[in-house]
Amino acid sequence: MRTGVWLVGARGSVATTSIVGALALRAGLAGPTGCVTELPELRGPALPAFTDLVFGGHDVVSTPLAKRAEALAAAGVLPGRLVAALPEELAAVEHELRPAPTAGTQADRAAAIVRDLSDFRHRHGLDRVVVVNVSATEPAARPHPAHADPAALHAALAGPDEVLPPSSLYAYAAVTAGCPYVDFTPSTGLRLPALGALAAERGLPYAGHDGKTGETLVKSVLAPMFAMRHLAVRSWSGVNLLGGGDGATLADPAANAAKVESKQRVLGETLGYEPQGGTRIEYVEELGDFKTAWDLVTFAGFLGTRMRMEFTWHGCDSALAAPLVLDLARLTAAAHAAGLAGPLADLAFFFKDPLGAPTHSLAEQWQRLREFTRRLHSGGGHADRG
Amino acid sequence: MRTGVWLVGARGSVATTSIVGALALRAGLAGPTGCVTELPELRGPALPAFTDLVFGGHDVVSTPLAKRAEALAAAGVLPGRLVAALPEELAAVEHELRPAPTAGTQADRAAAIVRDLSDFRHRHGLDRVVVVNVSATEPAARPHPAHADPAALHAALAGPDEVLPPSSLYAYAAVTAGCPYVDFTPSTGLRLPALGALAAERGLPYAGHDGKTGETLVKSVLAPMFAMRHLAVRSWSGVNLLGGGDGATLADPAANAAKVESKQRVLGETLGYEPQGGTRIEYVEELGDFKTAWDLVTFAGFLGTRMRMEFTWHGCDSALAAPLVLDLARLTAAAHAAGLAGPLADLAFFFKDPLGAPTHSLAEQWQRLREFTRRLHSGGGHADRG
Amino acid sequence: MRTGVWLVGARGSVATTSIVGALALRAGLAGPTGCVTELPELRGPALPAFTDLVFGGHDVVSTPLAKRAEALAAAGVLPGRLVAALPEELAAVEHELRPAPTAGTQADRAAAIVRDLSDFRHRHGLDRVVVVNVSATEPAARPHPAHADPAALHAALAGPDEVLPPSSLYAYAAVTAGCPYVDFTPSTGLRLPALGALAAERGLPYAGHDGKTGETLVKSVLAPMFAMRHLAVRSWSGVNLLGGGDGATLADPAANAAKVESKQRVLGETLGYEPQGGTRIEYVEELGDFKTAWDLVTFAGFLGTRMRMEFTWHGCDSALAAPLVLDLARLTAAAHAAGLAGPLADLAFFFKDPLGAPTHSLAEQWQRLREFTRRLHSGGGHADRG
Amino acid sequence: MRTGVWLVGARGSVATTSIVGALALRAGLAGPTGCVTELPELRGPALPAFTDLVFGGHDVVSTPLAKRAEALAAAGVLPGRLVAALPEELAAVEHELRPAPTAGTQADRAAAIVRDLSDFRHRHGLDRVVVVNVSATEPAARPHPAHADPAALHAALAGPDEVLPPSSLYAYAAVTAGCPYVDFTPSTGLRLPALGALAAERGLPYAGHDGKTGETLVKSVLAPMFAMRHLAVRSWSGVNLLGGGDGATLADPAANAAKVESKQRVLGETLGYEPQGGTRIEYVEELGDFKTAWDLVTFAGFLGTRMRMEFTWHGCDSALAAPLVLDLARLTAAAHAAGLAGPLADLAFFFKDPLGAPTHSLAEQWQRLREFTRRLHSGGGHADRG
Ligand SMILES: NC(=O)c1ccc[n+]([C@@H]2O[C@H](COP(=O)([O-])OP(=O)(O)OC[C@H]3O[C@@H](n4cnc5c(N)ncnc54)[C@H](O)[C@@H]3O)[C@@H](O)[C@H]2O)c1
Ligand SMILES: NC(=O)c1ccc[n+]([C@@H]2O[C@H](COP(=O)([O-])OP(=O)(O)OC[C@H]3O[C@@H](n4cnc5c(N)ncnc54)[C@H](O)[C@@H]3O)[C@@H](O)[C@H]2O)c1
Ligand SMILES: NC(=O)c1ccc[n+]([C@@H]2O[C@H](COP(=O)([O-])OP(=O)(O)OC[C@H]3O[C@@H](n4cnc5c(N)ncnc54)[C@H](O)[C@@H]3O)[C@@H](O)[C@H]2O)c1
Ligand SMILES: NC(=O)c1ccc[n+]([C@@H]2O[C@H](COP(=O)([O-])OP(=O)(O)OC[C@H]3O[C@@H](n4cnc5c(N)ncnc54)[C@H](O)[C@@H]3O)[C@@H](O)[C@H]2O)c1
Ligand code: NA
Ligand code: NA
Repeated sequence: MRTGVWLVGARGSVATTSIVGALALRAGLAGPTGCVTELPELRGPALPAFTDLVFGGHDVVSTPLAKRAEALAAAGVLPGRLVAALPEELAAVEHELRPAPTAGTQADRAAAIVRDLSDFRHRHGLDRVVVVNVSATEPAARPHPAHADPAALHAALAGPDEVLPPSSLYAYAAVTAGCPYVDFTPSTGLRLPALGALAAERGLPYAGHDGKTGETLVKSVLAPMFAMRHLAVRSWSGVNLLGGGDGATLADPAANAAKVESKQRVLGETLGYEPQGGTRIEYVEELGDFKTAWDLVTFAGFLGTRMRMEFTWHGCDSALAAPLVLDLARLTAAAHAAGLAGPLADLAFFFKDPLGAPTHSLAEQWQRLREFTRRLHSGGGHADRG
Repeated sequence: MRTGVWLVGARGSVATTSIVGALALRAGLAGPTGCVTELPELRGPALPAFTDLVFGGHDVVSTPLAKRAEALAAAGVLPGRLVAALPEELAAVEHELRPAPTAGTQADRAAAIVRDLSDFRHRHGLDRVVVVNVSATEPAARPHPAHADPAALHAALAGPDEVLPPSSLYAYAAVTAGCPYVDFTPSTGLRLPALGALAAERGLPYAGHDGKTGETLVKSVLAPMFAMRHLAVRSWSGVNLLGGGDGATLADPAANAAKVESKQRVLGETLGYEPQGGTRIEYVEELGDFKTAWDLVTFAGFLGTRMRMEFTWHGCDSALAAPLVLDLARLTAAAHAAGLAGPLADLAFFFKDPLGAPTHSLAEQWQRLREFTRRLHSGGGHADRG
Repeated sequence: MRTGVWLVGARGSVATTSIVGALALRAGLAGPTGCVTELPELRGPALPAFTDLVFGGHDVVSTPLAKRAEALAAAGVLPGRLVAALPEELAAVEHELRPAPTAGTQADRAAAIVRDLSDFRHRHGLDRVVVVNVSATEPAARPHPAHADPAALHAALAGPDEVLPPSSLYAYAAVTAGCPYVDFTPSTGLRLPALGALAAERGLPYAGHDGKTGETLVKSVLAPMFAMRHLAVRSWSGVNLLGGGDGATLADPAANAAKVESKQRVLGETLGYEPQGGTRIEYVEELGDFKTAWDLVTFAGFLGTRMRMEFTWHGCDSALAAPLVLDLARLTAAAHAAGLAGPLADLAFFFKDPLGAPTHSLAEQWQRLREFTRRLHSGGGHADRG
Repeated sequence: MRTGVWLVGARGSVATTSIVGALALRAGLAGPTGCVTELPELRGPALPAFTDLVFGGHDVVSTPLAKRAEALAAAGVLPGRLVAALPEELAAVEHELRPAPTAGTQADRAAAIVRDLSDFRHRHGLDRVVVVNVSATEPAARPHPAHADPAALHAALAGPDEVLPPSSLYAYAAVTAGCPYVDFTPSTGLRLPALGALAAERGLPYAGHDGKTGETLVKSVLAPMFAMRHLAVRSWSGVNLLGGGDGATLADPAANAAKVESKQRVLGETLGYEPQGGTRIEYVEELGDFKTAWDLVTFAGFLGTRMRMEFTWHGCDSALAAPLVLDLARLTAAAHAAGLAGPLADLAFFFKDPLGAPTHSLAEQWQRLREFTRRLHSGGGHADRG
């Protein structure tokens, strides 16, 4: 099952780490630590092998992939020896990267993206191409009447307006090209009625939103712990200090707001009430890709006794995100092969703000993911259709 | 279903907090925060109501319960207003406390305990009495050949030797008196072949070991998180600073060893490998019942990138333990009423070192507990028998 | 040396804690923990005794002092037994509190404040009255041409404009009434050329700004440590979570800005360069008077090796501030008695943003404070005059 | 002033980092971050320049220096590019390293060390050689009557006994060879009456003990902060997790005890009382040279209010220690040149357990160090003699 992985934001930190990692895995130079689809509980024949993955993508910048990889190695995100060992493989991927189309109406740009996707599929004889958005987080999208249905959308895109935010234009193009779509960012992506309808029409599965890698991951096990123990969380306050390209983007208050909101959702929905406090994201250039998050939780126990917990998370964001990008590409490809369509709520495990929002408890999400892969591996994916 | 709760160590912090809390709940002066059996997912008709619980117990000291409660209020463990509001109720429980028997052979002492239990049951017309060990942690028990089977045990107890450690002598007496037994401590309790055989003979359920209230509780959700994400935990080091009676006991290296071991088990069994590092318990009198635990976890992600997490837990041990003691008494009573016998592995949720050691993941333990209570409430407990 | 202590914001947390504490000290019910003027290195005959202090003050609210004290006791800031033991003493102070004047022009209001101060002095036969501002932090003051010199100021105050922010109107009235003035808040207070000139004319000493009690206190020893060790601080990021009256005020972005700026000054001036990062204040009602601050410091050592330090401070703000308010009242009274005038740079030890900004190193501030008190005790205060 | 720096334990982490760093500084490839003698306040003509330093040393292992340096680079302690840039310079130092003498009586071994030192001095035409002990921490030395005076010592060394621990045998040889001696470890070194007397006879200065690089450094500013604020420290508990060669040695309980004791001394002597709690050192191989220390401080403020502070220090021990080794070599050489003899209490700034134990406050130690260097630079060292 030869599978294309088309990365939007292909020269960014997450994308570059995903590509180098996949190449290293394929070459036997690295193990699958961090890839959940390689755990015994999830592994199986329905997933494309790492050797079946072919990478391509769009970006608005043109920094060579190898240079970006070296910068990540210098920053301690990647082992330098891997970058040094894979020059030809990286050059091959470099040939598959395309500039993000900028000319003409949004319809013109969508058509250009569709062409890039189709060419990529044919050039490599791929069974399918999964489009994964790992580009910079956008500000919240401006509402537009054409978001409501496919016909209005087609018409509006041909006009002069910026009808769709970039993430949604890529989603639109992906669907048009018959490609499943994954949004690893908090951007709008496929979350517009018109796009959901188009994906349904085309029988395409999609997944999102916003990869869950740090503080929110921890929250998704700690909040259920407090709930299961009937402890009353009084306040939960957090701060995320991060540098890197993502940090710079999120320093913009509009993008920050989108991200922060998806981070807090976990609490209210898990606990059944909203504790005091909030989460903040601060840009500290010096920290680079290594993020530090600190959270303080105050809670009351039996007879009202006050207690507290705090944690500090020092994570390398790209190293945490990259294997999940590979997991998502494999799982979404397998879902497509199994004939599944629509939002993949069973992939909530991977996201801060999961589509279908089934539950925010990591353990429950894990159960669903296990059952989902079990069905896929036993050929039972189709059962979900219709 | 009038249910006796007989506390071994009845004048200790955990016992006193349990008693005051249950009285306050019964009087409508406090809510059930921290009682998991009051969560909508677990609540139901099979459990004795708080108003059905009658307390009694043994202790080696004779400090009046009310005085102990006042000391706990002064230390911030209990609200002083509750202690002030319940003088008669506390005096009533005081009348049900008995000195731990000390005279004669261990057989004599066991007989005295059995008498105390039977008198208690008859005096209050109780359907059953659950014995809960919340006395000080013992050093690891010395092996003795009579631990192997009931007959040898009966014979040996009549001799001059200290055949059983105190927790096991109480367990023996409980079983002899037909009482279900819960061990909230890491002591030996019912974990000897001879005692297990006796409980089976008598059709008695039992639960244990070592209430999971602080650092280990957090471990039981964080370790599965690392496992589910396929992250490689390299080291996990912890320190527990605690005062209080329990802290003083654990300052004794032998008791410390027993406790530390039950704390570390979670990791190896959840992760499938043993990370470096260990857990330490230190006595710091000044901290009183408020324990501070600090843990450092170092882990490797994709391509070996090193990351770390640390957390600090400032918990009030008795406030965390007491509602669980009430939960365990209710659940074990219901199990007995339902005809269940033997180790209750479905209660693993409550313990650091659960009998039957089914899993150390809190989320999976929660699932089992939910199903267990669902069966109880639907009258299906018996199905597990035979 | 009978000394009046006139508190602006007399019914606030800091003021109430200062009053209860001073009364308790006088009654022998509490020791002087937290009072630096009681350390052997600083103690001496030049300072008024605690028994010589008489309290009064202004506030805009009228909550009885005793009620405020009980609320602080319930919140764990004060021992309830002290409040219970001092009902008459608190009632006596209650009689000395006056509503903040609100009628007429600012000149009218200043005159009313002057009258309150003079009446207080005469009523109690006081040698002097020190005015201490512990009222809510104001937003940064709007510039006004009359701030430049005394004559313009007198004229403008008689007009309809709000020429001075409240803290400066109190400072103006204090100077007019011949009272030394201490500003424990970050508000403008005496920091206007016109007011400085008036204080110089009247030969009055004054001190400020913004009591140093938590995170900034720690910074003032850690930043010099990094500097003395020639370590390069790369980033220093902090978050302050606090409830209480002060927290509510600071939730207002304008007040927050004033406070945050005075917090960051320590770093730049101590290190000689500005590390990345900043400090934030967040309001979390549930934390009450107990503030939690968390700081992350990243730094480079020999050959550029990257390291980090983080700290968490869980302090009770009012309990930290109150003894310093008493210290400042005693020291400023002694300075006045010794004939000192103008900004007391030797009191920098107490402030986040000290007047005269001599140094931000706590150890150097301590040296200056020791020498200052040594001079005072040896009667040498006058040497600094002229 | 050509100065030899003779390192005992010359192939260890601290020694190797010191050597690579000095070579890099000399070659202009690195700046002096972490070297306090390069701060404007301390810099001056009395100190030998980095270009004047010549390195040699003893070790019991024979791992090539370059290999050790590469291992440290791989571990992130040193930048690999520096090691790669200095192959000849490292080879030159390699030629100056000698195996630790092992044959014959302790007198024979001392004589061999003296020969190595003299040869080194003559070979390079050095004005003096400073011996710095950076070898593995020893267990506490066994008392021996010959420790009391020089004559008894000379006699005993010629016999078959192990009269002196290794650090003291090196100190004895250093003194015999006319070399000033610095002990960067907690080992006995020159701290025996017989050795002190010999150093006095020979007019030699010496310094020690135990470089202050991590948790104790922080303690030496935080403990004075609590003292200056008259806050009552109730408990201070710490844990040090470390890997590396030093960690492995300290895992040995006897060495651990020596180190822990020198760590706790700071508190009692600074505060004037002993808070509860203690410090522990745990070996966690995985952490390598990067140590994590966590400390919890509980304290009482005004009216007894309880508060707490905790900090985590993630430091690279060798990177913190190496520049101090260079500082100490320069300062001790300058002291010798200035004719100073005996224990250099003015160097307390550098040590956990300083000779002459003048004060444990870092700020006061800094004052003494500044005055000391000021005297040296103005040629006033001699004033201390006689
Ligand atoms: N790293 C994590 O742990 C994590 C977790 C959840 C979500 N995310 C999200 O993943 C995304 C990528 O993160 P990153 O750290 O790689 O950021 P990055 O800034 O390094 O990379 C983003 C890339 O997107 C490109 N880009 C921007 N606009 C584009 C457009 N219109 N079309 C095509 N490319 C465009 C940029 O040029 C850049 O190369 C962010 O949105 C981030 O919020 C990351
Ligand atoms: N508090 C928690 O969070 C927690 C969690 C897990 C386990 N536990 C365990 O619960 C137990 C009780 O803890 P605690 O804080 O109440 O301790 P505690 O010291 O306050 O109370 C123990 C009581 O047991 C009594 N006792 C000792 N030996 C006895 C004997 N032979 N017979 C009868 N009574 C005896 C003591 O006199 C004392 O009153 C400990 O074993 C502890 O390890 C507590
Ligand atoms: N607690 C600390 O550690 C600390 C440290 C530094 C500075 N401060 C400053 O001390 C001040 C007091 O803090 P708090 O916690 O007591 O706050 P608070 O809100 O409890 O008390 C402030 C009091 O000032 C009164 N007030 C407001 N405007 C007034 C006016 N115009 N005239 C007279 N009274 C007025 C309020 O009614 C209130 O009673 C704040 O400005 C705070 O920033 C406190
Ligand atoms: N790194 C720090 O921050 C720091 C701070 C204070 C003190 N120290 C002390 O510095 C010393 C060195 O630390 P390290 O991390 O370099 O340890 P390390 O184990 O890497 O190096 C010690 C070296 O000493 C050698 N050695 C052992 N016994 C010897 C002997 N008898 N003669 C000659 N050489 C001998 C060993 O072979 C090894 O090469 C330790 O005693 C440590 O406690 C280090
Ligand atoms: Na912490
Ligand atoms: Na921390």
